[in-house]
Amino acid sequence: MRRLLLTPGPTPLPPSVLKRLGAPILHHRTREFKDLFAGLQAGLKSVFRTRRDVLVMAASGTGAMESAVCNLLSANDRVVVHVTGVFGERFVKIVRAYGLDPVVLEEAWGDPADPGRLRETLRRERGVRAVFFQHVDTSTAVVNDVRALADVVRKESDALTVVDAVSSLGGERLETDGWALDVVVSASQKGLMCPPGLAYACVGDRAWAVSSVCRSPRFYFDWRAMRKGLPESQTPFTPAISIVTAQCEALRLMSKHGLPRIWAKTASLAEHTRAGLRKMGLELFSKAPAHVLTAACLPEGVDGKALIRDVRAKTGISMAGGQGRLEGRIVRIAHMGHINRRDVDAGLKALKAYLHKA
Amino acid sequence: MRRLLLTPGPTPLPPSVLKRLGAPILHHRTREFKDLFAGLQAGLKSVFRTRRDVLVMAASGTGAMESAVCNLLSANDRVVVHVTGVFGERFVKIVRAYGLDPVVLEEAWGDPADPGRLRETLRRERGVRAVFFQHVDTSTAVVNDVRALADVVRKESDALTVVDAVSSLGGERLETDGWALDVVVSASQKGLMCPPGLAYACVGDRAWAVSSVCRSPRFYFDWRAMRKGLPESQTPFTPAISIVTAQCEALRLMSKHGLPRIWAKTASLAEHTRAGLRKMGLELFSKAPAHVLTAACLPEGVDGKALIRDVRAKTGISMAGGQGRLEGRIVRIAHMGHINRRDVDAGLKALKAYLHKA
Repeated sequence: MRRLLLTPGPTPLPPSVLKRLGAPILHHRTREFKDLFAGLQAGLKSVFRTRRDVLVMAASGTGAMESAVCNLLSANDRVVVHVTGVFGERFVKIVRAYGLDPVVLEEAWGDPADPGRLRETLRRERGVRAVFFQHVDTSTAVVNDVRALADVVRKESDALTVVDAVSSLGGERLETDGWALDVVVSASQKGLMCPPGLAYACVGDRAWAVSSVCRSPRFYFDWRAMRKGLPESQTPFTPAISIVTAQCEALRLMSKHGLPRIWAKTASLAEHTRAGLRKMGLELFSKAPAHVLTAACLPEGVDGKALIRDVRAKTGISMAGGQGRLEGRIVRIAHMGHINRRDVDAGLKALKAYLHKA
Repeated sequence: MRRLLLTPGPTPLPPSVLKRLGAPILHHRTREFKDLFAGLQAGLKSVFRTRRDVLVMAASGTGAMESAVCNLLSANDRVVVHVTGVFGERFVKIVRAYGLDPVVLEEAWGDPADPGRLRETLRRERGVRAVFFQHVDTSTAVVNDVRALADVVRKESDALTVVDAVSSLGGERLETDGWALDVVVSASQKGLMCPPGLAYACVGDRAWAVSSVCRSPRFYFDWRAMRKGLPESQTPFTPAISIVTAQCEALRLMSKHGLPRIWAKTASLAEHTRAGLRKMGLELFSKAPAHVLTAACLPEGVDGKALIRDVRAKTGISMAGGQGRLEGRIVRIAHMGHINRRDVDAGLKALKAYLHKA
């Protein structure tokens, strides 16, 4: 049976990316790899919309999220986490693991982060060192207004802004330099059309200054070591070579299409998906629906876990269910990266057939 | 030009492993992936020679090394690092990053770790919590007598034994359970014939007991989270799916050959390589030469960095030079994993031709 992924990570890989993945491996201390790594830098700068270097880790996106905690904060520092879903909760867990007691500003799930509430919080809390939030929280399919939130942080505090763009990068407009974002983290397996295994952090000058005095223990995720090797296109530890190769090819494809065109295509696919779901009588879950994926509420009596499993078994199409407290209650369809309209239509059709029967 | 890797990581990938790498990606929350992950567990248990679970991380080997520090030790704990090369030094750096002041027991480079010296050290130092050493330190091509060292640790102290088997696993005999090793860490890209990107930790009961009271901050590398998902074949964060798939295939190949036969083949290749180097008039660098790779001293006046670069440019064959203080002074030839006698002979021939000219 064919296999079609409409899941928000991993996403389907373009044929030329698969071909690079399956090519004989090269050694990472060679001119060939250095050229490749330099190309990776150029491509990543272009999707992050930045002139800064982009740090590259062999890890999942969570590794890059943790790197933003352990390079910027020391135990007992004051931070705010603006939570709009499971991945906001993950930031809360990470900062707690490092001995911090975060101010947790949680929205009702499905609602975006409210810049007004963040403003009030920052006016009330003194000495906040960093504010964490998601661009898109994949669990709720909510897109946050990164620009407005970052403006609030800058106006109301000296805190650093840390943005999780793991599922949004390459699909939703994000301007790292233009919006003066201190730290943006992302990963390879969503909009960037690669297998999971590479994580990225784009770090601005204010964050670099803080990292040099940060006292949290770190080694593998130490940004300073990663930065040291960049002029020579080296990573401090063995890089995930095959995925670097694949990522270069995926970035080449993206640059051929042009980022604004990819944003527009993703937005249009999102519009199409929402319309299709509404036509089926389903209500969208998110009050601020993302472009990279769409979540819909399931009718009473429909078991979301069974739906995902049965649709996959019957059609080979993988959609995502709910995570955490949303388990079984929603269905999520990704339309980022290599996913096209025909794929989404196949997913909508399979969903409709299942719901009709159920 | 063909490309032949005789480097100690990454090592060449078998064709069937490459094929799996380049196959369309699957989703990790599916029955298909669970079955795959269960197979990965079974295969890893077989190469680690253990009945324990093997923890799987999306990271380089250094990530697994760090995991053994941050899950077992708290700031100011007493530890011993028995150093036989660059990777021993890496353990020193990691434990220092976590606020520990290790007792560093360093051998002259090229010498193996002396169990007698370790015994003296443990008799002198009180309250040592853990002893770290390499099975093979890739930088010096030295193999340490893991069994004897672990026996000393057990007899002289209550310390945990932490063994870095990143470059030895699958190539040199290692008995995790049989030798009662508390922690063994490894990675995918050497004897296990996969791309870099997966790291492993095999953790025994005594180490689990310590990890539950360890106060070092950790999240991505927290063993407890990794263990929680294992009964359901889940990793806490998105796994490096493509490499998991490839690793399953490589482990299948290894199980088809049988581990003792692979050990014997690796030992015989090592013997062959040493003989070839001696015949060229080169002296072996290591006093206890490993089976997985061989290091030879370069004659006075030969620039090791130029040698590696020129041989690669001329023949497509990648060998490794020296690391750290050995930079430019030695050449290292790997003969682990998918590397066969013909490959080694091609390397020896290229080396001979270069030295003849130089």
